[in-house]
Amino acid sequence: MSELRRDPIVGRWVVIDSDHLKGPKDFPQDDNTPTRSAVCPFCPGRETQTPMETDAIRPVGSIANDAAWLVRTVPNKFPALGTDIAIKKEALGIYDLMSGSGVHEVVIEHPDHAKALADLNKEETLAVLNQYQSRYLKLAQHKDSKYVLIFKNFGSSAGATVEHGHSQIIALPMVPKSVLGEVKGAEHYYHTQGRCVFCDMIEQEYHDRERIVAENGAFIAFCPFVPRYAFETWIMPKAHGADFASTNGIDMLHLAALLNDILNRLKKTFNNPSYNFYLHTAPINYATPSCYHWHIEIIPKLTRSVGFEWGTGLHIVPTLPQDAARFLREAKY
Amino acid sequence: MSELRRDPIVGRWVVIDSDHLKGPKDFPQDDNTPTRSAVCPFCPGRETQTPMETDAIRPVGSIANDAAWLVRTVPNKFPALGTDIAIKKEALGIYDLMSGSGVHEVVIEHPDHAKALADLNKEETLAVLNQYQSRYLKLAQHKDSKYVLIFKNFGSSAGATVEHGHSQIIALPMVPKSVLGEVKGAEHYYHTQGRCVFCDMIEQEYHDRERIVAENGAFIAFCPFVPRYAFETWIMPKAHGADFASTNGIDMLHLAALLNDILNRLKKTFNNPSYNFYLHTAPINYATPSCYHWHIEIIPKLTRSVGFEWGTGLHIVPTLPQDAARFLREAKY
Repeated sequence: MSELRRDPIVGRWVVIDSDHLKGPKDFPQDDNTPTRSAVCPFCPGRETQTPMETDAIRPVGSIANDAAWLVRTVPNKFPALGTDIAIKKEALGIYDLMSGSGVHEVVIEHPDHAKALADLNKEETLAVLNQYQSRYLKLAQHKDSKYVLIFKNFGSSAGATVEHGHSQIIALPMVPKSVLGEVKGAEHYYHTQGRCVFCDMIEQEYHDRERIVAENGAFIAFCPFVPRYAFETWIMPKAHGADFASTNGIDMLHLAALLNDILNRLKKTFNNPSYNFYLHTAPINYATPSCYHWHIEIIPKLTRSVGFEWGTGLHIVPTLPQDAARFLREAKY
Repeated sequence: MSELRRDPIVGRWVVIDSDHLKGPKDFPQDDNTPTRSAVCPFCPGRETQTPMETDAIRPVGSIANDAAWLVRTVPNKFPALGTDIAIKKEALGIYDLMSGSGVHEVVIEHPDHAKALADLNKEETLAVLNQYQSRYLKLAQHKDSKYVLIFKNFGSSAGATVEHGHSQIIALPMVPKSVLGEVKGAEHYYHTQGRCVFCDMIEQEYHDRERIVAENGAFIAFCPFVPRYAFETWIMPKAHGADFASTNGIDMLHLAALLNDILNRLKKTFNNPSYNFYLHTAPINYATPSCYHWHIEIIPKLTRSVGFEWGTGLHIVPTLPQDAARFLREAKY
């Protein structure tokens, strides 16, 4: 029998279609084996094929835009938003307009074309996360920035257009709708319950246990009770914190370990699936950090949204989160 | 230069990526030529392969479940929600649960496997719309119904799993989030401006003219100023009305003509693309019908949502609505 579940953050109802449950073998499998290193603009030695780097992690002695980088950040060649434009706001009849000022960068995660993020060791993963953090701090200072989003598309069916492992960072001149809904929902919960809704969620995960995939000293990974997608997995700091950018070095190492672990569990469970993840942190200069709790949401690309979801915002999920968590817990890699 | 636009209904910001504009030839083209009539459960003569019909339009003398139907409605063999279950609500810690009671039906639009909705003549299209309306009225009476959604997936990349032309109708035990957001936004607009936001939108379309695709005596079709998807097109009654089910016979004929026209313009422009549409009408027993205005949203499936949109709710649209409207206006079929 199918079941409707409502999440306590934004009030979204989701249908868990337990009459037609799907396990890992019931979803079509992508093949994300890299094949195009010969023409890859992100490979070392082809630094002139990208815009000049804005940041990098490099060994001592190497210089900007040479081929010896370990992690490299460049402006997106096809940015969604223009940079360094004086922001202009106007009304056109009943509509509001703004010029599209922002910053859109690409973090190239590793020199080796064949190595996906899941294939990096703990130190290499940490280097990527450290680069996220340093770019976050930089982009948050952009005069028009209201929100900085870090996200990753892996595999063509998740929207990756370049095969070489990379993530994206975008600074936006407004807080986008999904994030705003989450922030407002968390504030409402805090003001009515006196507690952080994400902290309560972690409590409930420990109480129920069945949806936890893995954890370590600082982070927990679980399949949320109200997922929008099958095998959706969240990684959350166990200690309350609104702001990813404040994460200290020891916690970053814990995060690197758990992110790597979860990506490998997904890789094993689905034979290297396409996926998206994005990091939700508080808006820049957020005034009430007690209310919000930063986290990463990982979504393997197994199904696609169609008319029904678009028309309703109602997601139909064919896998119980406790089953997804069990499959991921049992994955040996 | 890209531009951010905010819609006046739900307050959604959208990026129009005018630095990398795309016309019809710049999107991958689907091939939706029907090929599987030999095994189609929706073809006449195979009525036993579907659940028994709940409604149909039939010539005089034909009887339920015989092969002489013109339009036929059957329960979905794989419903998203169970039927006729006593609805049960409970809390599980911080989460809300409901049993998934609802009704999920399929409207088979025409006996001919080779005829898509766009290929039907005006009378055949009207028959489909009349069936929508009569099933809407029926399903709205279901004791747990809070909302009835009519929608269509055409083409496999839009989520259609059966090739034979069909639409879907689902009765839900709650008003889903997207619809609720639209209703609340329209109410807020009405209470602050004293007018229907959709009526104001139509006014602005007449003022600006450039986004209108086609119109007739009762309906207008336009590419909205703040689309979420390239070539998104809305069909709206010109006269204010909250409730699709109240549409009279003459207006239904106008709607059939305009829906057929728009589907053919899309078919011509993109060589028979996959698409979704859904009908947004007021929730059942809606108390303030001055605030809401029913309409159909048509979304050709040209791009896919990826991490960025999921993480932010911010859509990046590579086609200006006035350009989309011009391409559709100029399509000769």
